[in-house]
Amino acid sequence: MEKSLDLKTLFHPRSVALIGVSTEQTKLSGRPFRFFREFGYTGSVYPVNPKYQEIAGVPCYANLSDIPGDVDLAVITLPASAVPGTLAECGAKGVRAAAIISSGFAEVGGEGVHLQEELKRVASEYGIALCGPNCSGFIYFPERVTATFSVGLDGGFPELGPAAFISQSGALSSYILGAAKERALGFRYWITTGNECVLSFTDYLKYLLEDPEVRLVLGYLEDARDGQAFQIAARRALLLDKPLIIMKVGRSEAGAKASVSHTGSLAGADEVYQAVFSQNGILRAESLDELFDLAVMSQASRRPRGNRVQILTNSGAAGILLADVGSEWGLEFSDLSSATKEALKKIMPPFATIANPMDLTAEIVARPGLLKGAAELILADPNVDNLVIFLGIMPGAHEKLATDIAHVARATDKLIMVTWFPLPLPEVRQILIQADVPLFPEPARGIRALGKMAQYVATREKALARQPPPARKEPDSGSEVGKILARAKNQGRNALTEVEAKSLLNACGLAVPRGGLARNAAEARSLANAIGGPVAMKASSPDLLHKTEAGIIRLALKSAEEVERAFEEIVEKAREWNPEARLDGVLVEEMIGGETREVIVGARQDLRFGPIVTFGLGGIFVEAIRDFAVWPAPLTLEEARDMIRKIRGYRILTAFRGRPAADVEALAQVICQVGQLACQWQEQIAELEINPLFVLPEGAGVIVGDALVALR
Amino acid sequence: MEKSLDLKTLFHPRSVALIGVSTEQTKLSGRPFRFFREFGYTGSVYPVNPKYQEIAGVPCYANLSDIPGDVDLAVITLPASAVPGTLAECGAKGVRAAAIISSGFAEVGGEGVHLQEELKRVASEYGIALCGPNCSGFIYFPERVTATFSVGLDGGFPELGPAAFISQSGALSSYILGAAKERALGFRYWITTGNECVLSFTDYLKYLLEDPEVRLVLGYLEDARDGQAFQIAARRALLLDKPLIIMKVGRSEAGAKASVSHTGSLAGADEVYQAVFSQNGILRAESLDELFDLAVMSQASRRPRGNRVQILTNSGAAGILLADVGSEWGLEFSDLSSATKEALKKIMPPFATIANPMDLTAEIVARPGLLKGAAELILADPNVDNLVIFLGIMPGAHEKLATDIAHVARATDKLIMVTWFPLPLPEVRQILIQADVPLFPEPARGIRALGKMAQYVATREKALARQPPPARKEPDSGSEVGKILARAKNQGRNALTEVEAKSLLNACGLAVPRGGLARNAAEARSLANAIGGPVAMKASSPDLLHKTEAGIIRLALKSAEEVERAFEEIVEKAREWNPEARLDGVLVEEMIGGETREVIVGARQDLRFGPIVTFGLGGIFVEAIRDFAVWPAPLTLEEARDMIRKIRGYRILTAFRGRPAADVEALAQVICQVGQLACQWQEQIAELEINPLFVLPEGAGVIVGDALVALR
Repeated sequence: MEKSLDLKTLFHPRSVALIGVSTEQTKLSGRPFRFFREFGYTGSVYPVNPKYQEIAGVPCYANLSDIPGDVDLAVITLPASAVPGTLAECGAKGVRAAAIISSGFAEVGGEGVHLQEELKRVASEYGIALCGPNCSGFIYFPERVTATFSVGLDGGFPELGPAAFISQSGALSSYILGAAKERALGFRYWITTGNECVLSFTDYLKYLLEDPEVRLVLGYLEDARDGQAFQIAARRALLLDKPLIIMKVGRSEAGAKASVSHTGSLAGADEVYQAVFSQNGILRAESLDELFDLAVMSQASRRPRGNRVQILTNSGAAGILLADVGSEWGLEFSDLSSATKEALKKIMPPFATIANPMDLTAEIVARPGLLKGAAELILADPNVDNLVIFLGIMPGAHEKLATDIAHVARATDKLIMVTWFPLPLPEVRQILIQADVPLFPEPARGIRALGKMAQYVATREKALARQPPPARKEPDSGSEVGKILARAKNQGRNALTEVEAKSLLNACGLAVPRGGLARNAAEARSLANAIGGPVAMKASSPDLLHKTEAGIIRLALKSAEEVERAFEEIVEKAREWNPEARLDGVLVEEMIGGETREVIVGARQDLRFGPIVTFGLGGIFVEAIRDFAVWPAPLTLEEARDMIRKIRGYRILTAFRGRPAADVEALAQVICQVGQLACQWQEQIAELEINPLFVLPEGAGVIVGDALVALR
Repeated sequence: MEKSLDLKTLFHPRSVALIGVSTEQTKLSGRPFRFFREFGYTGSVYPVNPKYQEIAGVPCYANLSDIPGDVDLAVITLPASAVPGTLAECGAKGVRAAAIISSGFAEVGGEGVHLQEELKRVASEYGIALCGPNCSGFIYFPERVTATFSVGLDGGFPELGPAAFISQSGALSSYILGAAKERALGFRYWITTGNECVLSFTDYLKYLLEDPEVRLVLGYLEDARDGQAFQIAARRALLLDKPLIIMKVGRSEAGAKASVSHTGSLAGADEVYQAVFSQNGILRAESLDELFDLAVMSQASRRPRGNRVQILTNSGAAGILLADVGSEWGLEFSDLSSATKEALKKIMPPFATIANPMDLTAEIVARPGLLKGAAELILADPNVDNLVIFLGIMPGAHEKLATDIAHVARATDKLIMVTWFPLPLPEVRQILIQADVPLFPEPARGIRALGKMAQYVATREKALARQPPPARKEPDSGSEVGKILARAKNQGRNALTEVEAKSLLNACGLAVPRGGLARNAAEARSLANAIGGPVAMKASSPDLLHKTEAGIIRLALKSAEEVERAFEEIVEKAREWNPEARLDGVLVEEMIGGETREVIVGARQDLRFGPIVTFGLGGIFVEAIRDFAVWPAPLTLEEARDMIRKIRGYRILTAFRGRPAADVEALAQVICQVGQLACQWQEQIAELEINPLFVLPEGAGVIVGDALVALR
């Protein structure tokens, strides 16, 4: 089914049937009719309800089949039990789109689940684009398609704008719609997804991105059910430079619990979501304020060109606050060039300091050309990417200052934004808004939005420049990896042994320690002999995966006696720990010593987003302080390098306290390889972990210390 | 000089002279006169300026001495150079308080510095309470004392309230004043401190806290110059339960730089400020929005009783957002008791889930008694400390819902707060405000304020319950510690040797490794012999403090040969590293092995706040990931325990991966002892660091591995 085709009818219906309509205009079932009439929808509107002959002068039909003309869209507000049958009637009449506002489906469990399955079947049978059920409907503003009962329209029909909003919430979406005018945000689409029986959050997103008039998409998201499609759509948004601003909730335990009870979706592990968001430049809003702030920043046609910011203020304190918060969000407050400083000296009051932030003091009012002159000089400086202005209460000067800023903004390609506290009158705000200058009511909020936007731009530039990660290889059952996996599977096992896991990784080009499997003490001794230096020994068994706990590891064994004794002890411990365990023998390997760092590299298959790679420092670091990074696979070498740099303990891998730097480049390659493995063998490998991976000094590579591969 | 006496005259003058007054009412020098007249100050107002005979019908005096009556307060707006002389005239006439608005003093450097010194001298000579210079003056609202030119009064005289505001900024303070009305915040005092030539931020704070009508104090702070007095005042505020809400800026490099150029004060190390704030329950505002949010929360007469919160919402999504953000700020969203759940079932719609957050859905409007009934049941539940309500747009129901909440609030002692998005009309807000229900325009902001307030309450309870830390002991020069310090001082040294530092700590009861100083290889061998196990050896020299870098440490030496060889090598390395270094010998000590953890405990004298204790995990943890905690000394055992629990890597000290728990209690005691040492010997010890301190398993104590004491 080509869903995208149906969405066109959903948003551009030439005629609408309101099935289950009520005459009570305050009721959920009465409000859509009122909105269609009141706000000037130009298509045909057919109320359907056997109880009435007409509503507000419009003929009302007892049944859908009584409607004389074609119907494109059905808005259904009937009780749940009546909905599947009605949808089938719609299908029979050729209705190709429906918004089912009624609740009582999957979200209530039991019979509701069956009703929803029936809906899905009917929609599929007739190819109906279905919004909901259990939703607040949708609005397509340009054509006044108001398939909703939302109280967000109670304040009147809002102004059009370049934003689209997709939401997995009902009530809150209405409040966001209601608040948009005050925040100078205009919508083109407003969609509540409800139970997503047919159309999902991602389906809408894909469609909206291709509307050239949509310049940014806002979302309220509890769970992206089709994670991989979501990732592709998010990447598309990034390439099109249509910022995706999402409030993703359900991060806390309490929040996630509520999320389950709310719309029946399971909140995802927040770390994976965050990685997917970061990878695709999705702007995450942590509050309703921030949702609007990021939208205001995104709807400006100008983007930050970099992260260097000059602050112009009429309050030193506000300047410091801006610098403090901006620094936290990655902005830089660099020095102006000396030429700019010289030029500024000529127009600045003698007591003012030419600095960053730069405080124009009360002179900003006393000298009418000061702000304009300073702003122009600053914007001409190549050291400046963005100009942030703070203003406060300046009696009599607001309009003049706003006009000056608008003038300067029109003459530059660089981003100028204003934070004005408290906000001036609406007519003054309008001057800035019309000049495409983002305006914020609070300095910390404004500069944070700029910081996130600069990050978005950087992510986008990286995405445009980057080599795509190597395409997913088809699993090749004839390869060494394929054979190892198949053998274990055939034996009914759900994990590889350490020896197998290392062979698998070695077949992919990863270095493993020299050594082999000893079946008796004598073999162990001769293996140790051949290795030459101190050795490590561990029991090898498909049934003993947690070797430290079982006490079946011995390290740094030097003499032949030590090796033989260790063999006997390991076998004994293994038997004690699990008498049923199959024991293949004891692995005898060279000790990896010297200036190595231990790290962990792993991959697992995420339910939503597919293969996810994890990297962290080894041992207590990862476990005790949860110092690790996750990223979706496949990933590029540059992304792997970013993962490594991102962890708190990164310095430990650099030249530090007299130790040489670790071979971070070889580590990055392994992270990529592990990601590729997880992608290629997605159907076979459930989880893969190298722990520890020994990272040798720069140029010397890495060696797999131990590895675990769990099968699906 | 008893500053607090003079403050009374400053804020309650019976007469005011406005020296340098202008007839131009828009000018800085004309505005105070206008405000005094316009807003109904009832004392005498004397304009002083030789240029005029009268201003607006009021006689104007050429000189201060021409004024017939007494003058309590002088508001001076003359050019800087004329101010010291004028202040002396004030003194001669018996004026006891002054607000010097003029700038051109220390903040401009050069001659300005001298002018300010002169001001200080004159103020001290005549005992004048001096606000400023280089400030926006102050306001005492109840008596309409408007010694300011602030544009914050341009919107009219604000409503009175229980808040006081002290600010090291001028312009921003005016904007905060101007924004207060919209945010339902009322002030009693509004003070800008300027250059703090005489009266400091802390002086005002101390005074305000003793006004019984002041219930909360807001501050904008760049630097607390008298840090120890500030700490005492903050502690007093906490005990009086008058929340201190401070925006402390200058945290970033760019911000701190601006801070210096702004009012001539050096921004403090942010970590120390944060520790002082945490210790004293100071609520830190990270933005202007948060300054107001915390004020709204603080001015309510009710405090959170604990951190358990039930959420009632009419939007599931808003409920999840509240739970997410609340969890981040330490709130708990616990289960209601089963009795409450049973009772709720009887009034809730059948499809609603009784959970936390609890979504009342659109039924909140459809069932008029639902919100009230549910709120009452929840508040009666002993599992609930606080009730947080979220509301949105509910046509026709706002007044009824607000009235219901107000009713419920009046019948309970528990805290109820409301987040309403978008905000309802002012008359609806008023219903809640009058019922002492804090109201917030955005859910994330509201719940964050609650989280911080619950933390404030917990800090206050701890402060009330805690044993005061042991009083600072006077330094006793006859004690062992005194002797060690004196000897080094007398030898002109600025640091103790390791041997001395360990003796000093040992004299305070801390365990040190067994061992001694060897002057030759034979002595080393016999010391090692006496110790019995493997030993550690290090050069002992007052000139070689960084032993690892110098390569003068050898560890785990077992045989007599190893010990003798190590002696020779250490001596040789020491000579190589610094041929001039005095070498006392080589320290031979038992190796501390087994299940120990290495930590660092240190103390230093902070310029502002005095002795500060630092604790962190040893080695790479502290250096590579900056995982440490700081706290002002002296500190209680409970505070030391909190420091330990606060670091990210705390789990490493607990029973973890089969290792026994470390002796955290003994560690806490050492942290206290180090704090006490730094307090007692504040004049002698500049810095003290135990690194590493070996923490043995529970019950086995701690041992000083190495120690460094730098002298003042």
